[in-house]
Amino acid sequence: MAHIKLPEELPGIRGPFAFRPETAKPMSELAEVLLHTPGSLSMGERELIATYVSSRNDCHYCQTSHGAIAAHHLGGNEQLVLDVKHDFENAGISDKLKALLNIAGKVQQNGKLVRPEDVERARSLGATDLEIHDTVLIAAAFCMYNRYVDGLATWAPADVDSYRQRAATVAEEGYLGILAAVVAQAVTARSD
Amino acid sequence: MAHIKLPEELPGIRGPFAFRPETAKPMSELAEVLLHTPGSLSMGERELIATYVSSRNDCHYCQTSHGAIAAHHLGGNEQLVLDVKHDFENAGISDKLKALLNIAGKVQQNGKLVRPEDVERARSLGATDLEIHDTVLIAAAFCMYNRYVDGLATWAPADVDSYRQRAATVAEEGYLGILAAVVAQAVTARSD
Repeated sequence: MAHIKLPEELPGIRGPFAFRPETAKPMSELAEVLLHTPGSLSMGERELIATYVSSRNDCHYCQTSHGAIAAHHLGGNEQLVLDVKHDFENAGISDKLKALLNIAGKVQQNGKLVRPEDVERARSLGATDLEIHDTVLIAAAFCMYNRYVDGLATWAPADVDSYRQRAATVAEEGYLGILAAVVAQAVTARSD
Repeated sequence: MAHIKLPEELPGIRGPFAFRPETAKPMSELAEVLLHTPGSLSMGERELIATYVSSRNDCHYCQTSHGAIAAHHLGGNEQLVLDVKHDFENAGISDKLKALLNIAGKVQQNGKLVRPEDVERARSLGATDLEIHDTVLIAAAFCMYNRYVDGLATWAPADVDSYRQRAATVAEEGYLGILAAVVAQAVTARSD
């Protein structure tokens, strides 16, 4: 049971989003910019970073939902998502993405752990300042989302298939439509 | 030196904010809602939570800047800010705020560490669901801001007086005006 009274039908972050739309709005907009706007890192790569950090923070809802979104972007390759979570240095991804995941893993622990040589490794493999910036911020932001979801003890669906279905919608439509749906659902629930 | 090329004159989070206004906007709006809108927790109390979490994350810029803002809201009581960072259970604050800081400290480590009895303690001392929600999210959000500031190796002023001066402005005007100023300053710098 969640630590505060949340709409029961909404899993994971959607419960607190419906509880507090004022904070859900900027949190959704940040996810939209970082994960779902056109950029030189593909959406699949950015979702892999989010999934990896959520996995390191042991957040079941976030790693499963963003893992499913990553897999959707990657042509349904769920094994690759598991490989990245388990051992990204030996996964079937680009060397540049490996260097960025190394930075993300350090940010997940503490930003100070990122060393100039970590950044130099990424840069030597073609990473731009914007890609390095966004990697650091995706990792930092998921340290927020993960703690928000778990710190309020929200519930997460157990069946993987429900994540797959939602992932397809989020991967196509992004994070702002989800927010609107959650808030509308919460308002409807209150007026029932 | 920062890990990426940032406007040199802007310390702390203001450098990356100027570098990436698209993400600075929702990050500033989230801070505004959490820290600077009217609420049942005073702005001083909320800034103390932000300062405490930033201190636990060892983020020099964030704990000094938000500590100065907290002190401004608290009538200039800088000693109280130091007391909260050092040992909040024995600081001159309300029992309710102590219970909320206990929750914030757990979120800072991992959201899963928040136990029902931690929430019950806060509730028995008068904390509402909204106050518990906002405490969890302030703590989670500063785990993002702290990692963003340190993960990019931004610089922080050494002299405490510059923080005091800026704190007065932020405490009065909030976080959105700061964002506008930073972005305008960056645009001016680029066109020089």
